[in-house]
Amino acid sequence: METQEPGEGTPTEATIPADAESIGDWATCAAEPGYRAAVLDLLGALAYGELSAFERLAEDAKFAPGLVDKAALARMASAEFQHYQLLNDRIAEVGADPTEVMTPFVEPLEAFHRLTAPSDWLEGLVKAYVGDAIATDFYREVAVRLDDDTRDLVLRVMAETGHAAFAVDRVRQAIEDDPRVGGRLALWGRRLMGEALSQAQRVVAERDALSNLLVGGAQVKGFDLVEVGKMFNRITEAHTRRMAALGLAS
Amino acid sequence: METQEPGEGTPTEATIPADAESIGDWATCAAEPGYRAAVLDLLGALAYGELSAFERLAEDAKFAPGLVDKAALARMASAEFQHYQLLNDRIAEVGADPTEVMTPFVEPLEAFHRLTAPSDWLEGLVKAYVGDAIATDFYREVAVRLDDDTRDLVLRVMAETGHAAFAVDRVRQAIEDDPRVGGRLALWGRRLMGEALSQAQRVVAERDALSNLLVGGAQVKGFDLVEVGKMFNRITEAHTRRMAALGLAS
Repeated sequence: METQEPGEGTPTEATIPADAESIGDWATCAAEPGYRAAVLDLLGALAYGELSAFERLAEDAKFAPGLVDKAALARMASAEFQHYQLLNDRIAEVGADPTEVMTPFVEPLEAFHRLTAPSDWLEGLVKAYVGDAIATDFYREVAVRLDDDTRDLVLRVMAETGHAAFAVDRVRQAIEDDPRVGGRLALWGRRLMGEALSQAQRVVAERDALSNLLVGGAQVKGFDLVEVGKMFNRITEAHTRRMAALGLAS
Repeated sequence: METQEPGEGTPTEATIPADAESIGDWATCAAEPGYRAAVLDLLGALAYGELSAFERLAEDAKFAPGLVDKAALARMASAEFQHYQLLNDRIAEVGADPTEVMTPFVEPLEAFHRLTAPSDWLEGLVKAYVGDAIATDFYREVAVRLDDDTRDLVLRVMAETGHAAFAVDRVRQAIEDDPRVGGRLALWGRRLMGEALSQAQRVVAERDALSNLLVGGAQVKGFDLVEVGKMFNRITEAHTRRMAALGLAS
């Protein structure tokens, strides 16, 4: 990673390109039923994503070697719950039923967590860090395609991430203490990204409106697997850079 | 419960008697090493109590029959974490090490949770409600014996409780649907209180300074088991009234 640019591989920031164009406010955009359905899908996926992240982080806190670390993971979990609350409230605000809107995403997210249950504290830390970073990348990718009101919400949720920074120090220290740990965690990081992509592909295959939104905004009609693939590639590349920066070849 | 006074058996409020006298501010009171040690014990016990409540509530959320209930328990857990944060920050602010201050209370609190792990959603709900109420009773008992600054903190934490109210509706409905549930949950409520008292007695026996604070403030010297017993009795009586109001003979 000698060619790494400054800032690459570091935790992502809660910003979007300054030149992101406005496509209008929620009231205007949501007049189109396809757009409304797509954004509700997105909010449902994000909301359940945050709620399940809360649950799993809280559970993984049991592996913490001490009270400071336990509290740090609990702090992340608590932040995820606040995100969930914002997203849930927004779904209700636009007149939809949060449970109904979240339900299609319960199984893919539960499958992801079931298949990536950490077996120890370090795996839990890497998962917390990777999950936080992928979520932030995804939020940023999607923010530019949204109406002003939904974008504001997404940026508000994103602005409160970054609690995973403590994980970086802990993982680096563990690898320094025992370099063999690096090999194991590199495999683990790859597996996390693989399972995340696998479940994301599943969602994309089942939710046409959401997929269209993800790749081109309300304007794009028709499902474009290539564009979805490109977005996943960008997120995977960012993950790869972050893992390398962490000392984990992925 | 025909003789029940208004307000009895209902969730407790974040108030203390208006005539509670000031014993001075933290700086004045903490000049006495015994007082400082006692308040640090108290803050440590409360802080770890909140952190472990966070963990257990988050874990018990897995029993939730649906997303709304899961989120309600997660909301309680998240609130407990905020309480933990306030208490933890205060411990650090007065120059003590939060981990060191919490450590004596880890084992009694973990033992309590180990011995009262709910086996289903309703047991989890009753535990959430009972735990919240006992904590509030205890905070109120202790608030009147504290210096102004510590009292403000305790009242701030207390003011943010009350998230367990949803549990009352759920439990009442379950008993209405199947009255046999009431018998089982009444036993469970009794066991929760019994284990809480048992661990509290253990803490009292081991922490002299804290025990003195609990029964008489900084002025009282010498350990008074009778006074501690009276305080526990008041909390037990409030618990009994609440259980009765919930339709659970205790």
